[in-house]
Amino acid sequence: MTISISVERGADKTAPLYRQIAEQVEQLIESGRLATGTRLPTVRQLAADLGVTVVTVQNAYSELQEEGLAEAVVGRGTFVTRPAPSDFNTIIGDGERTTDVMANMVRFGRSSRELYPMAQANSGVDLSPAAEFFRCFSTLEGEADSLLRYGRTQGCPVLRGELCNLLASRGLDSRPDELIVTQGVTQALDLLLTQLCKPGDTVLVEEPSYLGLLGLLELHDVTAIGVPLDSEGPDLTRLKCVLRGERPRFFYTTATFQNPTGLCMSEQRRRDLLVLAEDYDLLIVEDDIYRDVELTDAPPPPLKAMPGGRERVIYVDGFAKSLMPGLRIGYMMPPPDLHAPLLDSHRLRTLCGPVVMQAALTEFLRRGARDRHLERVLPIFRERREALLGSLAQHMPEGTEWSDPAGGLCVWMTLPEGACTDDTYRAALAAGVAVAPGDRFMPRPTARGHLRLSLGAVPAERMPDAAKALAGAIRQALEAGQHRRVEEAVPLV
Amino acid sequence: MTISISVERGADKTAPLYRQIAEQVEQLIESGRLATGTRLPTVRQLAADLGVTVVTVQNAYSELQEEGLAEAVVGRGTFVTRPAPSDFNTIIGDGERTTDVMANMVRFGRSSRELYPMAQANSGVDLSPAAEFFRCFSTLEGEADSLLRYGRTQGCPVLRGELCNLLASRGLDSRPDELIVTQGVTQALDLLLTQLCKPGDTVLVEEPSYLGLLGLLELHDVTAIGVPLDSEGPDLTRLKCVLRGERPRFFYTTATFQNPTGLCMSEQRRRDLLVLAEDYDLLIVEDDIYRDVELTDAPPPPLKAMPGGRERVIYVDGFAKSLMPGLRIGYMMPPPDLHAPLLDSHRLRTLCGPVVMQAALTEFLRRGARDRHLERVLPIFRERREALLGSLAQHMPEGTEWSDPAGGLCVWMTLPEGACTDDTYRAALAAGVAVAPGDRFMPRPTARGHLRLSLGAVPAERMPDAAKALAGAIRQALEAGQHRRVEEAVPLV
Repeated sequence: MTISISVERGADKTAPLYRQIAEQVEQLIESGRLATGTRLPTVRQLAADLGVTVVTVQNAYSELQEEGLAEAVVGRGTFVTRPAPSDFNTIIGDGERTTDVMANMVRFGRSSRELYPMAQANSGVDLSPAAEFFRCFSTLEGEADSLLRYGRTQGCPVLRGELCNLLASRGLDSRPDELIVTQGVTQALDLLLTQLCKPGDTVLVEEPSYLGLLGLLELHDVTAIGVPLDSEGPDLTRLKCVLRGERPRFFYTTATFQNPTGLCMSEQRRRDLLVLAEDYDLLIVEDDIYRDVELTDAPPPPLKAMPGGRERVIYVDGFAKSLMPGLRIGYMMPPPDLHAPLLDSHRLRTLCGPVVMQAALTEFLRRGARDRHLERVLPIFRERREALLGSLAQHMPEGTEWSDPAGGLCVWMTLPEGACTDDTYRAALAAGVAVAPGDRFMPRPTARGHLRLSLGAVPAERMPDAAKALAGAIRQALEAGQHRRVEEAVPLV
Repeated sequence: MTISISVERGADKTAPLYRQIAEQVEQLIESGRLATGTRLPTVRQLAADLGVTVVTVQNAYSELQEEGLAEAVVGRGTFVTRPAPSDFNTIIGDGERTTDVMANMVRFGRSSRELYPMAQANSGVDLSPAAEFFRCFSTLEGEADSLLRYGRTQGCPVLRGELCNLLASRGLDSRPDELIVTQGVTQALDLLLTQLCKPGDTVLVEEPSYLGLLGLLELHDVTAIGVPLDSEGPDLTRLKCVLRGERPRFFYTTATFQNPTGLCMSEQRRRDLLVLAEDYDLLIVEDDIYRDVELTDAPPPPLKAMPGGRERVIYVDGFAKSLMPGLRIGYMMPPPDLHAPLLDSHRLRTLCGPVVMQAALTEFLRRGARDRHLERVLPIFRERREALLGSLAQHMPEGTEWSDPAGGLCVWMTLPEGACTDDTYRAALAAGVAVAPGDRFMPRPTARGHLRLSLGAVPAERMPDAAKALAGAIRQALEAGQHRRVEEAVPLV
């Protein structure tokens, strides 16, 4: 059996080599040219034929196995098992719970099918500074032994030192011993919930808010109370009403370039929020992960840096949005009185993170690679933002609304009445547009449907087509809605 | 001001370069030759003088800052702040809680002072395969982009494939989709506790057991019930008694080369335990992290691989003991019915681990570096075991008892009556022997004192001196005990 596969290299490649190989084999299977039971070439043979590493082909075959398309029989080889699903329905089918939605978004993020990747709030792989990050490893070889021993639970001192410099550039004074390094913002939020909340507690969130946090609240059996947003930030009158009746453990906010709306809380609203927090003894968790992705105006300083912030605000940040999601490095700066208990809990629950990654990030920051990366990608993000907003204005059906992000990677879309989130989500995926279903970002059910669109991974020139495809999906959803209403209508007799 | 510092390179170096620099500066401070307020050389200058990288000096200065010996003033330089403590009392002083003990053990593990590092159950840095591990990074450069995107929560498919091969060599059949990769065994245990236990629940542990787990149980407000050990393993009669009255969520066992005793559960005891577990519907958490460190006889197969194991046993493993603690990669193989809930919870709480580290470990395993490493270090560990046991027999005061480990890195010591754990622990540290205080490994207070000695990091030829120093510490503790008893004695009048 001969199969023809080719790989394309270069900075503007659409996918990593192993994905290119996996997908071509997938297409050969779908097209029936590779029948079930066919034995695939050996890893070494295919690697040699394509001039790629054995690891690359192994990764490709493992992807096929993950997707149930191939099976490895020890000592005999890798065999085609069954045809691939012809579209995403198999994924959508079980995309009900937040965990599944998150898993799917990661999967879409890794796929290089002909779809518009607008589900994950990440930049495109074409913009990744991964190559330069990898070069940092070679500078660390002399430290290899110590970098592979247990490190400090709190994180490498040198990394925390660099983080302090970063925070200083945001107007936030800090000392290395005030910071706690975590496995991304996700682990920081889980640590906070474990430390601060009991089952049955309530927490305040923006409405809409980050679906990962809402999923964690569910996991911890903590109730989310939503606070609506206006153009300035959270509605403090509503917030006050809640605080009169409830004792929420904290208010979670992505004040700067809010996820999923991209809005930025005004400086005045920040001041008012901190005063309110003082009056009602309310803790604030400020997730600042989008701050570096500045698209229009410069944001106000972090809540943590403003009067009262030091004692009231747990500052959380990471590098998934500004650099690379795969770093899995975040950090937090809690109020002084929470530092020791959080660090003790973190020690027992994780002992320490991988020092190698922390040291490589330190070197990456130290040599200014972060600054150079942002200088390079921010203009591209701004261009993509313009293109997306322009295309939406041109193509969206009447009654569709969307946010005007000042920063971050997301646009929040409110669907026209009659188009529900799931219908639109499914139709969009079928049309090749991967978006995030909006209801997963809402702490409670809403009348109108919503989608979150990420602007980071679709080139500006493809935005018009993406918008057209999405508009078509919304129209389909409107028809489906119509249809249901007719069916559900009770005839008058 | 001129300070003379020298660094020593080479495979048998006692400490990484940055530690050598940090400690020489520390000694200069202790000796008073660097007064408080003195400005240290700039990082670049010292790096140039010593012919080391800037990173190395930065790491050294950061260590000094961490230890409160130096202070960096932005734009002005690094300054000596206050003299170093002349011994470990400052550490011992707050070494009360499990988290502190763990932090101290990590600190001792990183220190290259003239002490015998027997606190952490790790191999010495002189045996680390870190250099070869680092070489694996260079083979991954072509994959850089995809390795720094979000990976699967479950872990890289290729890594899980390699882990299945490893498990097959232990007689345990598994499929990649049955495994869940975690940030070391610690994160796996925390995930299990969060998933399986509510505050107030009880869990069964061996007596003594792993202090990290006992700390986690405390954190989760779960009560540990101890099951005594005999030479065959846990006392099943006692286990049965508990099961008649309680409904513990699971039994945690390091069946193979138990931590801290180094004992190996016999095959018959394993069978009986699994039958008992079946009768009382008891889950077993099998922590197999010490299996590769085989010192005398080959161990029986894992509980997970024995009749009934697949459904009853949550298998947990990692590479901190056999390879490098800093990898922070572990994995678990739960029973089929627990897989989905654990994976969902893991996704919400960590999203995914660092794919780069997982890919490097995959390459490391694939090229047989693990096998070569074990071939190299196991004879050395066996030699160190012999030397330690021989030296203990020669020098320990009467009434001291210790375990005869069949594998693993630990010897469990029971102190003579009258010598309490803390007195001995303090005296040992003062004498330069860093050990782990035994009471932290016991679920309940005991009459006799205990220590855990690690045999992994002290060269065989230094074991006699270590044993002598420890014997002296025990005698001191006995005197202190005597003294207390006399003071406490009530005179008969």
